This record gives sequence, C-alpha cells and structure tokens, in this order.
Amino acid sequence: MSQNSPAADPKTYRPDIRRVSIRGERDGVEVPFDELNLSNGEKILVNAVSGPQNIQGALPKIGKRFGTSEPSGEVRRCKKTQLEYAREGTITPQMEYVAIRESGKNGPDMAFTPQTVMQELASGHAALPCNANHPECEPMIIGSRFSCKVNANIGASSVSSGFSEELKKLRLALRHGADTVMDLSTGIEDLTGLRNAMLRASPVPLGTVPAYEALDRAEGKIDNLTWELFRDTVISQARQGVDYFTIHAGLTADLLPYAASRSLGIVSRGGSVMAAAMMRRGEENLAWEHFDELLEICHDYDVALSLGDGLRPGCIADACDKAQYGELANIGKLIERCRKAGVQAFVEGPGHVPFNRVEENERLEEILCDRAPFYTLGPLVTDIAPGYDHITSAIGGTAIAAYGAAMLCYVTPSEHLALPEEDDVKEGLITYRLAAHAADLAKGLPGARARDDAMARARAEFRWFDQFTLSLDPMHACEVWRSRMPENCSHTAAFCSMCGPRFCPIRLNRELTQKYSH
Amino acid sequence: MSQNSPAADPKTYRPDIRRVSIRGERDGVEVPFDELNLSNGEKILVNAVSGPQNIQGALPKIGKRFGTSEPSGEVRRCKKTQLEYAREGTITPQMEYVAIRESGKNGPDMAFTPQTVMQELASGHAALPCNANHPECEPMIIGSRFSCKVNANIGASSVSSGFSEELKKLRLALRHGADTVMDLSTGIEDLTGLRNAMLRASPVPLGTVPAYEALDRAEGKIDNLTWELFRDTVISQARQGVDYFTIHAGLTADLLPYAASRSLGIVSRGGSVMAAAMMRRGEENLAWEHFDELLEICHDYDVALSLGDGLRPGCIADACDKAQYGELANIGKLIERCRKAGVQAFVEGPGHVPFNRVEENERLEEILCDRAPFYTLGPLVTDIAPGYDHITSAIGGTAIAAYGAAMLCYVTPSEHLALPEEDDVKEGLITYRLAAHAADLAKGLPGARARDDAMARARAEFRWFDQFTLSLDPMHACEVWRSRMPENCSHTAAFCSMCGPRFCPIRLNRELTQKYSH
Repeated sequence: MSQNSPAADPKTYRPDIRRVSIRGERDGVEVPFDELNLSNGEKILVNAVSGPQNIQGALPKIGKRFGTSEPSGEVRRCKKTQLEYAREGTITPQMEYVAIRESGKNGPDMAFTPQTVMQELASGHAALPCNANHPECEPMIIGSRFSCKVNANIGASSVSSGFSEELKKLRLALRHGADTVMDLSTGIEDLTGLRNAMLRASPVPLGTVPAYEALDRAEGKIDNLTWELFRDTVISQARQGVDYFTIHAGLTADLLPYAASRSLGIVSRGGSVMAAAMMRRGEENLAWEHFDELLEICHDYDVALSLGDGLRPGCIADACDKAQYGELANIGKLIERCRKAGVQAFVEGPGHVPFNRVEENERLEEILCDRAPFYTLGPLVTDIAPGYDHITSAIGGTAIAAYGAAMLCYVTPSEHLALPEEDDVKEGLITYRLAAHAADLAKGLPGARARDDAMARARAEFRWFDQFTLSLDPMHACEVWRSRMPENCSHTAAFCSMCGPRFCPIRLNRELTQKYSH
Repeated sequence: MSQNSPAADPKTYRPDIRRVSIRGERDGVEVPFDELNLSNGEKILVNAVSGPQNIQGALPKIGKRFGTSEPSGEVRRCKKTQLEYAREGTITPQMEYVAIRESGKNGPDMAFTPQTVMQELASGHAALPCNANHPECEPMIIGSRFSCKVNANIGASSVSSGFSEELKKLRLALRHGADTVMDLSTGIEDLTGLRNAMLRASPVPLGTVPAYEALDRAEGKIDNLTWELFRDTVISQARQGVDYFTIHAGLTADLLPYAASRSLGIVSRGGSVMAAAMMRRGEENLAWEHFDELLEICHDYDVALSLGDGLRPGCIADACDKAQYGELANIGKLIERCRKAGVQAFVEGPGHVPFNRVEENERLEEILCDRAPFYTLGPLVTDIAPGYDHITSAIGGTAIAAYGAAMLCYVTPSEHLALPEEDDVKEGLITYRLAAHAADLAKGLPGARARDDAMARARAEFRWFDQFTLSLDPMHACEVWRSRMPENCSHTAAFCSMCGPRFCPIRLNRELTQKYSH
C-alpha cells in the first residue's frame, strides 16, 4: 500500500529509503547510495557511506582491496599517494569510486568521469584523503568541481564528554551525512584508544589536529613542546590511520605582531599552541621549520595536509587583516611544497567575515594557493548571535561554497558557548547539509537539482509523505506537520494547516494547468 | 555589584537593558531605544518600540501629535502623504523621528539626517508607512539606505489558532524585534475585531492582504469576488488603520499561461485568489484594472502599497522565469503610477531562488521598479529542507539584503508544514534579526558594527555575562553556557567548556598583547 494512500498513518510514517550500490570496473569499487522511494515510483539517489548500517560490527576494510597500499611491518604504507598516481596518469580504484559517487551513476553518461577526477587530483585542485592504515575509509573527494563536503568536529575534552559518548556522536554525524569527521579530543586519558575506536568505526576520512595530542604529551606545558615530541605525535597518528592533519604551519613569527594588535588575537586553538611555543622559545613555528620532515611522514601513508588557519579572524573587526592574509600567503608557499613532495593538501579558511567580503576570501585563496581545495569554518557573518551560530555561519558557508570552497566545517548551535551535545551535532549537520546543497545548486552541479525538483512535484500533488521522504530530516518534517493538523482532517487532504481547507493556491494550480496546457 | 563579579550567579542572570529615549526638535518626537549596559561601563543602543512595555495598557497615540493628519467624521485622514510632504521639501516629525532612530543619536553628527530621510522618501527609494488611523504606530523607514527591516507574519486561520493566541504572538514578535507585522488571518468569525485589537496593540506598522478578507466576505466563493466587494474591503481596512496593503495588482492575465507551465504554478495565496477570479470570469486582474481607485483610497489615509508578487517562484525550478519577471515588470509600471499619485509603495519579491541568482533578482528590481524598496520572502536557496526553512531562507535573505533589499519577511521553521506556533515565531524572528544585521554589516551602515565590536571585546576579556547581554537571545545563550559548565568551575573562570581549563587560546592572547604592544 502506498504511503500516500488515505489509510496511511502519519504516526507510523517512516521514509522508504533503500540501500543500493553501483559497481565500477575495478576490484573493490562498489559505491553505496541511499535510494529515496516515492509513492509515484520515482527514485532519487543520494550519497551514502556503508558505515551507519554496519557500525555495530566491524566495517569492511575496503581500502585493502584497492591495491594502492602494502604492509610494512605492523602498519601499511601507500605505494604512491593519490596525487602521484594521478600525475603519472593512473586511474586508481579510489578515483573510479569517487567518480561514480559524484555522478550517481556509472557508464558513458557519467557527469564526472574517472579521468576528470584524475585531472583534478593531478593539478592539486582536489584531494582524496585515504590513509593506508584506515582501510575502513570509503573514498570521497574534496574539490571545487565536485559536490561541497561537510566536516563534523567531535571529540572529548577533560571538562566534558567521554569515550562512548563520542562514538555515539560519530554515529550521529554519519547518520546525518558528515563527509569527514575531525576528532578534536584533548586532555583525556586514553586518546590513542579513543582515536583507534573512532577510526575503526568511521567509513569517512578522519582528521585530527596533532598539536592537541602533542600538548597533552607535553603534559600541557608549552615549554616541553619540542619538534621531536610534535614529530613523534604526527608519526604515531599517521601510522594509526588518520586521513588528514590540520597543521598550522603557515603561522610564522613575523605575523605575531599583527595578531597582537587585533581585537580578538588568535582564536584557533591549534594556532595558539604553535604561537605559544614560538613566543616561549623565541623560535620560528616548528611546523614551518620542519615542514619537509612532515611531508615525508604524510607521504609514507598518504595523509593529506589541511593547512590550518591559526590566524583566522575570530570576530568581524579582525576579518581580512594582515594577520589573516599574511598567513594565507604563507600557506600558498606550503601548498607548492606539498605538491612537489607528492602530498595531497588543502587550505583552511575563516572564521568571522562580513558577508560583503566572503567572495574576496575565496578569490584570494584561489590566487595565493593556486586553487587548492578551500575548507572553511563558516564564515560567520556576524558576532552577535551566540546560540544561533550554526545559522550565522551557514549563511557565510553557503556563500563561500557557492563561490568555490570545497568543504565546510560545520558549526553547531553551541559554538562560542560550550562543546556540542548530541542535539547540536544533528542540528549543525542538517544546517550544513542544506548549506552545502544550496551551494551545489548555485554551482549548477549536474544532478544537484533532482531532489529539489522531486520536492516541487510532491508539493504540487499534495504527496505529503513524499515531501517528508525527500527532506533532509524526514521524521522531523512529518512530526511538525502531523502535530498541527486538526485530528478530524484526513491526512491526505488536499490542504494543510497553513491556509486551511477553504482556499488553497496549490489546488487552484490544477485548474490553471487544465486551462492553459494544450 | 557587577554581573561579572565572581559571585554573580548565572541562574539568576538577567540582561541589564534599560529603556532610554532621544528627543527631537519637533513635537512628539521622542525615540525609544534599548540600552544594553555592560559590566565595564560600555553602553550599546539598539532600536526599540515602546509597545512591548506598554502593551497591557493602551499604547500612546503618538501619531496624533505629529499634526500630519486630521479628523474627518469618525476616522482621520492624512493631510498629505509622507511622499507628498517630502516632495514639497517639508520635513515631518515622522522623518525626524526615523532619522534619530536610524542614527541612534541626535545632533550635528547624525549618520542619517532628516534631510536624507526626506530625499529618500521624495525619490520613492524609501517608504514610511503610517496610516492616519493607526496613531499607535511609531515611525520606521523601509529603504535600502537604512537598516534592513524584518516583518513577521501572524494571523489566525479557520483550522488553527485563535484571537488571544494571535495577540500573544504579536507581543512575542514585538519582543523579538519585528519591525512590521502582517496580519494574515482568514476564515475566522470576527476578522474586524481581531484586526482592531492588533492595531491597538501594535506600535509597528501593520500590513494585511485585503484579498483574504475579500474572499471571506464572498463566503469563500471566487465567483462572488467582485471589484465592489474588493474595494469595500480595502476601504474598511484603510479606515481601520492598516498601514500597508499587499495587493497583487501586477499579476495580469497574459502571465497566466507562463504560470500554468511551471512546476509549482502559483504559490502566493493572495496571487491565486486574484488569478482564480480572473479565470472564472475571463477578466483582467481587478486590482490592475481599478488601480487608480485603489490609489485614491491609499492616498486618503497614507496607506502604503506593497505590490505583491503573486507569481513568486515556489520552487527552485520556477525561479527567475517569465512569469516572475513579467510580473516584476508590471509592478514597475504600477510603481510609477503610485509615485504620480503621491502614494508610498514598495515591491514584494521571491520566494525560492538558487543562491547564484539572488543578486540578479535585486538588480532587476532596481532597474524595473526604479529602486522602490524591495521586500522579500527569503529567498529560500533550496527546496529540500522543510523544518529548517528559516535557515534556507535566511541565507538568501542575508544575500539579497546585503545587495540592497530593504525589508525581509521572516520565515519560520514551520514553513511548508504548518502555521507557526509561538516557538516558531521566536526562532524565525531571531534568525531574521541576525540576517538583517549581517546585511547591515555588509552594507557598511554607520554604527552597525558597534555591537559586534563590543562582543569581540567581551570575548577577549572573558566577560561572559556581557556576551549574553550583547547577544540577540541573552537568556538562551546564558542557559546553553551554564548548563554545560562543570558545577565546580567558577562562573568567571577564564576558560569555557569548549577547550577546558588546560589550554585556552583566549588566555594566550593576553600574553601575545603584552609582548607585542608597545
């Protein structure tokens, strides 16, 4: 019986979503999708990862099937990085995988071919993070030409949250469509154990900020934070399977006076760890100084570098200043070195930026960093809405992604106030999924509009349950609708509680169509 | 004792907001503001109306003091409209009032002088709705050069909501900063009584869509909806005190075939009433045909015309099509006629529009309608997020207001699903206040950044309670922060639950400032 038949009960509504997959030519390439099944027989494919279904058991180690890594003692190393494969003209299974994923189909009419993916990777305009020691990771691509991705930050701190709570948040993030997850845990006892549990449970790339663990290893004492300690942290995380590292290597000593003259100085935690170490020792940024050694480590396992914006503006007053743009110029130089070393890389961006200067941020990144993927936190377009900063940031986020940013780091409603709890993770992710999708529509990405168009048809035909199934949060949409409908109204009635039964524009449209359609 | 002293208790926190006022030179010009008092002695002025404080009693009838209207039998008429006063070079008390309101001060260094206000009104680039029969209304201005305004739609329907509930929503809307309110009630018994109660309780301009009541008067039968009935409805609402009318006069018969070929046809309720009448009778739009008579009525009481976009796109697929832009061109012609007749007017806009075409909508309006104020509903930048459409629409809303739109009609989380309830009204308004403010920042409006800058300083100095006081929803921000802080932490501790006490970037900034500031 169709869910839109008169007897359908909104109290028992569940979206009809089926897991399907599309195979590629290469071994191990089988790309999962969620198929939204509508009552009129329409089917809409949306991206998915296998994780959320299998997460109670062990995830399949699909990375091992691809043949791009090999054992080396107790850990695995990549044979070549995806960047190196792309440059020599080899299409890896990972590249075919993401081509199918981005296209929503396989075969000659794919919107994104494996060749396109290869070219974008070869030029450094896209990245495909996939540490050889995270075989559970299902390939995904970060680049302006592809759909906009969303990262969710989670992680425990000594003040709040725990081990099992973080795994729950990871699952929640996956369920609501996080494309990557960053573990920002600090100050807890078994950081390594937690990270291992997260890696084993994560079918999406996992990123970290190694400076956090390094400071923990230094027992919170900046004076103990040496290059050797930092390096050893990076090596152990790389061998564990972290797919990308945020490292604030572009924050050089000459920029500190600019930061000091700001309203809000440095608001990046990783950036301030680096800055503190520089100030205490009177030395240059240790990651800038030892960047070649970092590149060697990343190269061995194909860890991507996310060049952190330690000087991102923390308020509107500090936006687009010498500190921020000076660091971006440094990052541009580091991007060049990453490419020479065959290491995949992307660039982190602001922060707090007024709406009229969002586009400038994207363009400047493209110029200074030669179109390396831009991965931004918002930007937040005002400072005065704590409790609603998922919204202030989604406004700037949609804009910068429409202009070309490749990935957005989500911001939750608790930003500036507290660590996010479960509800915040969900609210933040849905907000960012809608922002990323709006940007895909704005970029005119092939196929991006299919779901919107299906929604319009469902609205025109009063297929309420199909509207819920097509929405980013089906159960919530259904619940709002159901709870406001008068009890005595049929739930398939051709009206809603907004206009009431008396006069409904949607009903008039049928008359209009009949009269003018020939 | 300062609220930021160690003994301050977040459980009893209340923002220290005091009502102040600034007097003008002219009689009756006394402009209220809310003064946010911070613990360091800083004071930030934000716009306010006297309504929310006095609403239990009768509001002062300040309109009568201004001397721009006079009794005429049982009702009042304006002597001249604000547009006519402006054109002849007369600065009315209303103009001085809004100049002070927009400037946040009086005297020679005002950012907006009464002359500027007069010029913007004279050119038709701004409107100041103030029906002679709504003396409770405190003057406010809608125009691109001024701060972006937010309208809240409320109103009962036969399916849901009642009389006292709507007054409660009105109060809520005023408390959260609605600059105007539209009463969209239909299908209830005593529409006139409800509207009267709302007018008497509203210190902000009140708008309506007369077609709704006209259809009610026709007992829901489109065939009974004659010009005479429509005209009588408009006259009675004008005499009652409605400040602006949304009339869908630009939806002409030649555009109906374009609407019929759309995915979602007509989604504007007022627009579809007009279209239905046209189709049933095979006649032209009655408001288009009788526009001169409507202008006469509006002129008598200084009702502003909000030229409705009956063909606004209801989905991404229908955006920017011949139906929408054809109607906009018609509205441009009507704007010319409004100006000739001395009637204030503005233009309603979309709707659902992909982010990349938002700017085009603003520019086209400026060209076709000679920069009459643009009043938009969103636009929503995707169709797939019912339950979150306050966000999808605030994204497009911020963008179009940054490009120049003068007023945004709020959208609540229940859009597309149900009539808004109280929580929705609050959530929608705060979302739109942040969007409007972000647009003011983007436009570089004088003084717009003061509150953001004060927030940045409060963050730099760990003045948590000042952060709450400066935020758009102080109690909510405080509650999120308080509920996540460990019980044993001092509430003035120089850290928060995000990073924990171990390492805090904000603390590092003090060190940074000491080292580099000379």
